[in-house]
Amino acid sequence: MAKYYLPKGFKVSGVHCGIKRFNRDLGLIYSNAGCRAIGVFTRNKIKAAPVIVSKDILAKGEPIHAIIVNSGNANCCTGRTGTNDAKKMMRAVAEPLGLKLNNVLVSSTGVIGRKLQIENIVGAAPLLLRKLSEKALTNLSDALLTTDKKRKIETVSFNAGGREITITGLCKGAGMIHPKMATMLCFIMTDADIDKDALKAAFKKSVDRTFNSISIDGDMSTNDTVIILANGMAGNIPVRKGTKELESFQKGLDKLCLELAKDIVKDGEGATKFVAVKVNGAATEKEADQIARTVANSCLVKTAIHGGDPNWGRIASSAGSTMAKSVKPNKMEIYLDGVCMFKKGRYTHPAVNKMHKIYKKSNVEVEIYLNSGRKNATMFTCDLSKRYVEINSHYMT
Amino acid sequence: MAKYYLPKGFKVSGVHCGIKRFNRDLGLIYSNAGCRAIGVFTRNKIKAAPVIVSKDILAKGEPIHAIIVNSGNANCCTGRTGTNDAKKMMRAVAEPLGLKLNNVLVSSTGVIGRKLQIENIVGAAPLLLRKLSEKALTNLSDALLTTDKKRKIETVSFNAGGREITITGLCKGAGMIHPKMATMLCFIMTDADIDKDALKAAFKKSVDRTFNSISIDGDMSTNDTVIILANGMAGNIPVRKGTKELESFQKGLDKLCLELAKDIVKDGEGATKFVAVKVNGAATEKEADQIARTVANSCLVKTAIHGGDPNWGRIASSAGSTMAKSVKPNKMEIYLDGVCMFKKGRYTHPAVNKMHKIYKKSNVEVEIYLNSGRKNATMFTCDLSKRYVEINSHYMT
Repeated sequence: MAKYYLPKGFKVSGVHCGIKRFNRDLGLIYSNAGCRAIGVFTRNKIKAAPVIVSKDILAKGEPIHAIIVNSGNANCCTGRTGTNDAKKMMRAVAEPLGLKLNNVLVSSTGVIGRKLQIENIVGAAPLLLRKLSEKALTNLSDALLTTDKKRKIETVSFNAGGREITITGLCKGAGMIHPKMATMLCFIMTDADIDKDALKAAFKKSVDRTFNSISIDGDMSTNDTVIILANGMAGNIPVRKGTKELESFQKGLDKLCLELAKDIVKDGEGATKFVAVKVNGAATEKEADQIARTVANSCLVKTAIHGGDPNWGRIASSAGSTMAKSVKPNKMEIYLDGVCMFKKGRYTHPAVNKMHKIYKKSNVEVEIYLNSGRKNATMFTCDLSKRYVEINSHYMT
Repeated sequence: MAKYYLPKGFKVSGVHCGIKRFNRDLGLIYSNAGCRAIGVFTRNKIKAAPVIVSKDILAKGEPIHAIIVNSGNANCCTGRTGTNDAKKMMRAVAEPLGLKLNNVLVSSTGVIGRKLQIENIVGAAPLLLRKLSEKALTNLSDALLTTDKKRKIETVSFNAGGREITITGLCKGAGMIHPKMATMLCFIMTDADIDKDALKAAFKKSVDRTFNSISIDGDMSTNDTVIILANGMAGNIPVRKGTKELESFQKGLDKLCLELAKDIVKDGEGATKFVAVKVNGAATEKEADQIARTVANSCLVKTAIHGGDPNWGRIASSAGSTMAKSVKPNKMEIYLDGVCMFKKGRYTHPAVNKMHKIYKKSNVEVEIYLNSGRKNATMFTCDLSKRYVEINSHYMT
């Protein structure tokens, strides 16, 4: 069995339409059976046209059959022309497929503030439709990528409701760190027959635990989009809220989203290390989350990890800078790669041979025990390297 | 007249006591006349021992005659020993000067989590006292510095209440970006005769407009301290609230603090450019401040400025990521070094010769007009360079 494959009833394609000079830049996802669909979008006040249009379509609640997506241009800060272009893009595939606009979603990623090359997209639509196939996942993936160094595609399958259910997702990352070559896009397809409420609840939970728990440089883009489509073709007993089937589905979806989120972090611009920041024992969920986020976003913490410097002082200071009540100097403990560095208000002076092991592997763990309550949070991030500065200081001009 | 000099009645000194290998690392400020004193300290939940001790002393409200300060060790995360060491440090100068502990303040900056070298400090105290002089400002300044490349000393003088009043301040910066070699320290001395309430109000206002409006990498340290001492030796008619004299004093203090704050930003680790982020027309002060801070702290904005890339998209996205209601895509305007890049929801396509001037000087200006209200905010920051990563990835080990 291949490492990744499409769930039943889905076809995809990815072609080159000329927005980018050489690489694939236009993709399509299609399901003959109408899908239940849920989307999670950026909360940035500056939203790209395709985000605004797709949110509107999802609010209408009609079955979704297709998603058309381009890379190389974010269609953001493009005014009313941008909205019209997004709709033209949808129409280019809706009409030949016999769909209404309300059955199609649209997504873009790339440079902000440039008019979308809509003629290229409309011109390439017939090719895009002709190339629809059950075996074109890598083509679709390539059509999404911007500064990504690797494809990010994952498949999980499991039994639930008497049938095998498959969930496949693919995304472009590097983003969140690239509001110009904008953003994280993620499209998830499943053949599960699942009730809309159950799908919504499971999806939001998974997204919170995974995509909302990663950070590369703390910036949130104008185009961030995560969409799940469920076409019901597995023929399982429908998954509903409060059932064992939903538990299985949630587990599968969590696993898939976590792998994709990790793929994004590992491919962060200039990243050389994958970092998990675990905060335990906060008084409230909000404080746990806030502390994990602040430490994971600290340039000082991230440069120290990059340099293999077990600098727990920066972590203590960063946690304290949140002003969260859960941070009590005499109760807090800090572990780096399992070595206790700070306890009972003091530096622990670990043995030199222990110190030398810290931050030396490609997976790094920062653990903070607050001993102020029972709430935990985990954030995933990467280190901050000179390469990051290099990539991001020369981009537009 | 020298560029900087001490106000009447103050003496200072700075010596080498052996915390650092070579450079001066122990300083003293002394006024024979007791001073009214106000302090502003870090709000980090992890506070260094000298911060805790000095806050306590100031709360007692007795006249302050001296501040003893060391660099090279932050005396932070050092438990009860740390508090005792801070008091021993004060006692080392209090007794020979015939002062009570309640007349002395203490301050430290340097590595977190290491026991203070108190024997060195106590041992060097007699020398420190002997070297007290009206002409040792540069020695005191040198005793504060950590990764700073330059001394930061400023003097302003003006007439108020019938006499010439002098205010002199000195600080160590680079900090805020270096919670290990911790922080910003700033000591301001004036010979003004000023009522305590008036001093407090004026000082808080100045600090908010200046030191609280700078950011190098967004981290707040465990030792941040700004203290003002007013000894009344100018013999002016006492400055009180609601008087013209207070306006003059405020103006002088604002000017001094702004110059010092700019000195800090210009000396930020790896900084090559000084950046002013001006937000105009927000609905509330809170939103104006939040937007200015978020844009000034964005790694993407700061790397773009470093690379001379007029990337207004990152600025729009960063402002929008605050989710502030004042950010309305169709109303917002963005100017880089005076060139309008974004207006009425669209990229303005400035002429190439205009574009080429953006971000080319060592002083850079980012202006955001929100057109959503009447509140403004300004933040000062620097660019993010490879050198910053270099400095911060190898420090402790």
